[in-house]
Amino acid sequence: MQKIYLDHAATTAVLPEVVEKMLPYFSGVYGNASSQHFYGREAQKALDEARDTIAKIINAHPSEVYFTSGGTEADNWAMKGIARAYESKGKHVITTAIEHPAVLGACKDLERVGFEVSYIGVNKNGVIDLDKLVSEIRSDTILISCMYANNEIGTIQPIEQIAKIAKERNIAFFTDAVQAMPVIDIDVKKVGMDAMSFSSHKFNGPKGIGVLYVRNGLKIKSMVSGGHQERTKRGGTSNVALAVGMAEALRLNRLTLKQDYAYVEGLRDYFVKRVEEEIPFAYLNGDRQNRVPSNADFSFEFIEGESILFSLDLEGIAVSSGSACSSGSLDPSHVLLAIGVEEALAHGSIRFSFGKDNTKEQVDYTVDKLKEIISRLRAMSPLYKLNSEIKKV
Amino acid sequence: MQKIYLDHAATTAVLPEVVEKMLPYFSGVYGNASSQHFYGREAQKALDEARDTIAKIINAHPSEVYFTSGGTEADNWAMKGIARAYESKGKHVITTAIEHPAVLGACKDLERVGFEVSYIGVNKNGVIDLDKLVSEIRSDTILISCMYANNEIGTIQPIEQIAKIAKERNIAFFTDAVQAMPVIDIDVKKVGMDAMSFSSHKFNGPKGIGVLYVRNGLKIKSMVSGGHQERTKRGGTSNVALAVGMAEALRLNRLTLKQDYAYVEGLRDYFVKRVEEEIPFAYLNGDRQNRVPSNADFSFEFIEGESILFSLDLEGIAVSSGSACSSGSLDPSHVLLAIGVEEALAHGSIRFSFGKDNTKEQVDYTVDKLKEIISRLRAMSPLYKLNSEIKKV
Repeated sequence: MQKIYLDHAATTAVLPEVVEKMLPYFSGVYGNASSQHFYGREAQKALDEARDTIAKIINAHPSEVYFTSGGTEADNWAMKGIARAYESKGKHVITTAIEHPAVLGACKDLERVGFEVSYIGVNKNGVIDLDKLVSEIRSDTILISCMYANNEIGTIQPIEQIAKIAKERNIAFFTDAVQAMPVIDIDVKKVGMDAMSFSSHKFNGPKGIGVLYVRNGLKIKSMVSGGHQERTKRGGTSNVALAVGMAEALRLNRLTLKQDYAYVEGLRDYFVKRVEEEIPFAYLNGDRQNRVPSNADFSFEFIEGESILFSLDLEGIAVSSGSACSSGSLDPSHVLLAIGVEEALAHGSIRFSFGKDNTKEQVDYTVDKLKEIISRLRAMSPLYKLNSEIKKV
Repeated sequence: MQKIYLDHAATTAVLPEVVEKMLPYFSGVYGNASSQHFYGREAQKALDEARDTIAKIINAHPSEVYFTSGGTEADNWAMKGIARAYESKGKHVITTAIEHPAVLGACKDLERVGFEVSYIGVNKNGVIDLDKLVSEIRSDTILISCMYANNEIGTIQPIEQIAKIAKERNIAFFTDAVQAMPVIDIDVKKVGMDAMSFSSHKFNGPKGIGVLYVRNGLKIKSMVSGGHQERTKRGGTSNVALAVGMAEALRLNRLTLKQDYAYVEGLRDYFVKRVEEEIPFAYLNGDRQNRVPSNADFSFEFIEGESILFSLDLEGIAVSSGSACSSGSLDPSHVLLAIGVEEALAHGSIRFSFGKDNTKEQVDYTVDKLKEIISRLRAMSPLYKLNSEIKKV
């Protein structure tokens, strides 16, 4: 049976070229980059090059690029490290109701140690209301956090405008760009955020490495304390092989970004069109314009997302129900609830996230199977017949 | 020129067999282990197997093994996570003066948020005084932390006895076993610690992954919050490839542990004997019996460790001056100061750490070069002639 991977927002395969680039740094150039001898220097050189490559791509200075173990660590560090660094100024943080669990988890941790966090809602398209944001700002607000693009519904936020609002008020602004970085050519100086997280495995790099960009001048306390690595801000033996892999993956991503995502967007739009035309009671979640080109998140009425997911899986098609990070949880997606999707409908939601390795044939196969599956599941649903008849009236 | 690596305590090369084992998990089995589809399940299966392998080796239950991004994160998490979990009981922590910077950094972080930390000294051999430890215990002591083996001087601490002392008083006991795990077949149930950190790259596994063992029943708060990974205790997409690599590296390490370290100990003892017999004013730091088989840390009087390091490097020999993690710092080693080495002598210290890839010929070459280098450096030292004459009297 053919396998169709439509879960690129959860993770992506490491490109063979990226693996090739990493390989010499496992058994060959294996020194500790902090060591002062030959083995250490050659490791440090590779680490420096990886940092330079990433810095150049996002238009940052290399000293603004901090390697972490991934997006989740970077999110936690940004939230806690910035809040801690500015707590003498105030203990109020603003974020959104649709952040990734890593940011929301960090907010809960901050609340436990005396910070106050305001969670801004979003409109029915999943976009933050800037007036609402401004109205929540207080004299003791020290940090605003808003994700660049949402991991479930793909909505892109007005990040440049938020950066401007924060800057005018001298408030630090952090954005979780884990989902945005693979598809948007972000220039940190142009956008003007103070800090930004992103993760390698979302753009065909290895898992277990990410970056926190921290604008020079912004204060941040360490979360993982230890040696002098990462300019004393993040201890731990430098993960040279994975840093090299992450840099190469981002470099390759940027080489063909425009073409790749024009293609992916075409596939996605074709998928959305077919689903909307051919499957009744299917609702696309999130803004139709301000969204990443790779995402289509649908709620299918009267049935459970998990049943759809398992049925698609039996056909070799891999998708996600809500956030992959929330699997194992039976709660409906906090993102869907935040955009006003009612709980029953939220339970019937599936995220399809496309990549450049997908084909039109795969999309057609997926829609065909999806139609069959949804019909079959609805046929078994006692609510379906009654409700669908009522709705048709 | 031949290259001789004598810095195994800083890091080790990933074994080719370990790289082979990891390779399928980059581009092939690349799913997010949290995903519920085929790709996710095969990733989860590999992750489970890696966890099982490691658990079995240390005689833990798989649910007691938490993957982290390395030893430093595990150290930080243990210290902060356990202290936070028990803070309602008290806010006093006991550790030693010779801990790794990761533990000491975490202690500083704890002090900043209202915890009190007592730093127990060690004797001139670098061993903790158990009576001193007991005398520092108070009714509000909630955590004792003592490294298993020291990273600079290789001294092994009486961990079983400390575990017993802690257990009798219902105090949590954490040990940083980063340097011990590669050379000691640790059985967590036999030793009886509540938590233990170790890092893959010290035993020929990849950098960027470690484990925190947490005894079932011990409470610990999250440090890296986020999704449901690691039983909701450590967020972040599971690093399957590196977990597989770490498990394989530990498995292979244990297959030949006894032979390997009998061999390494032989080399190390031969090196110590030659240095002590042939180089005047060279002092071995740390206990001669209670020490890891791989470590020889020497202070060479009248000269700078850095000059020795750079001179050895020119001859292709890689060693460390003090802790590799402290490179970039001009402060003398806190470990050497703690065992009473005077500051000038502490500046003249070199750590030689041996591995099973080293040979007797390499040791001989190293001692020969070391003799030449030390003679040359001392000949340039204005203090040497005067002082050495006085000392000889």
